[in-house]
Amino acid sequence: MKLLRVGPAGAERPALLDEEGTLRDLSALVPDVDAGLFADESALERVRAAVGARVLPALDPSGLRIGPPVGRIGKIVCVGLNYHAHATELRVKVPAEPVLFLKAPDTVVGPEDTVLVPRGSEKTDWEVELAVVIGRTARYLETDEQALASIAGYAVANDVSERAFQMERGGQWDKGKNCETFNPLGPWLVTADEVPDPQDLRLRLWVNGQLRQDGSTADQIFPVAQVVRYVSQYMTLHPGDIVNTGTPAGVAMGQPEPKPYLRAGDVVELEIDGLGRQRQVLKEA
Amino acid sequence: MKLLRVGPAGAERPALLDEEGTLRDLSALVPDVDAGLFADESALERVRAAVGARVLPALDPSGLRIGPPVGRIGKIVCVGLNYHAHATELRVKVPAEPVLFLKAPDTVVGPEDTVLVPRGSEKTDWEVELAVVIGRTARYLETDEQALASIAGYAVANDVSERAFQMERGGQWDKGKNCETFNPLGPWLVTADEVPDPQDLRLRLWVNGQLRQDGSTADQIFPVAQVVRYVSQYMTLHPGDIVNTGTPAGVAMGQPEPKPYLRAGDVVELEIDGLGRQRQVLKEA
Repeated sequence: MKLLRVGPAGAERPALLDEEGTLRDLSALVPDVDAGLFADESALERVRAAVGARVLPALDPSGLRIGPPVGRIGKIVCVGLNYHAHATELRVKVPAEPVLFLKAPDTVVGPEDTVLVPRGSEKTDWEVELAVVIGRTARYLETDEQALASIAGYAVANDVSERAFQMERGGQWDKGKNCETFNPLGPWLVTADEVPDPQDLRLRLWVNGQLRQDGSTADQIFPVAQVVRYVSQYMTLHPGDIVNTGTPAGVAMGQPEPKPYLRAGDVVELEIDGLGRQRQVLKEA
Repeated sequence: MKLLRVGPAGAERPALLDEEGTLRDLSALVPDVDAGLFADESALERVRAAVGARVLPALDPSGLRIGPPVGRIGKIVCVGLNYHAHATELRVKVPAEPVLFLKAPDTVVGPEDTVLVPRGSEKTDWEVELAVVIGRTARYLETDEQALASIAGYAVANDVSERAFQMERGGQWDKGKNCETFNPLGPWLVTADEVPDPQDLRLRLWVNGQLRQDGSTADQIFPVAQVVRYVSQYMTLHPGDIVNTGTPAGVAMGQPEPKPYLRAGDVVELEIDGLGRQRQVLKEA
């Protein structure tokens, strides 16, 4: 299933995109697409049954904002340097184990919401990423099978980053990863049963129509299952948490000078096979 | 006022500790101590009026768990290396600007809850810290006065840290800062009007009865107002967010070998003048 949330920011309602591409209202069936839904197998069954019975009311998509596809996100754990070609473009060694950092849930916006270039920023960058949505608690997992079983679904994320804030202001990357609007997510949460191989997904990103990133999750240094298992040794992942699994080559930071960092007016589009497409217009904060 | 939350984890009710030291139930007046309360000046007035009129029902404290004093925390921004004596003990340079990193809200537990030594940990460490609770949105603040006006109150935090995970596993500190139970908070949120000078607070921490940290916020490299103003240039702080403002000297990492890292069975106690006292027993995860 393709689950999503539509409506004004902070007041989204749950919805579903059916196989014909029609938007369906889920708000009579479930309160939200969030940890509560992932934990409630009977609610998911009700949704599946209603889809099969074709009884869900259609929603008029015109003028309807698409929000992030997960509500009440607990935390966002990100993996840095997780694609071979990305490590190569940055001329850094392939990490021996996953590099982890956090984004705050308040950075999350919808897939077509405005992204703000922070004040004083000269190095705002893009990063198309496969986002994993956790559906079951993941704590000290022992096997890749357990890791995959903890995943509710997958979505597209743009791990927007300010490189000077991230790496030239002393200390930790978090400073350049947590500016407001820095994590567009969606349009959909595609449930894990409909993503047979998370290591065979093409990711692409365009800036002002020019293709900048074109990779595959086949190039991931640490595959999705291994990442989730690894994270669970250090942090407990809860339903409604997100794991951004890293970006392929092609970010602005990896380009020759003058690097094409983002400015107000730029348009970023990104997509992952089967997971939908995002489009953001950049504005000044 | 001293605001707190009591009851089972995840089902805490709002309460108040009055000037006589009697615990009072606030649940008939406000739904929780959280962003909603900080944003609702009339609710805060109702609480103050009820305190003055001495009409709040008393709670029997015996056997009552104290939870973290803030519900629905959005994010926790931490400042690293923010005390002169702490930078000295670690033999690192005083940072030119605040070092920031994040803790996830799911690390927060009550002030007397168990702290878990992560599996495989050999370097679990303590850090008594002054925690700032944000009451009003802080975004691109220009003055220290604006920063102080955005603060709802103050609390004690233990920024528990696993030093090997933090610094020997590749990459960012977050890996050693986000283990479950790694952020005891409370017992109280003391409202900002009752903390006339946040730069004149004594912080102390004992392990198994031995005094390990004994510092003052007067030793902070970046004072509270400057920290909040600085953070607001990079991230938007929202009501219900927390800023952990750094730890004074005396952590295990700063001791001579063999460094006295925490093990199951150890007891950590910590307090800040006027903000109350915590006590945690460590167990294996």
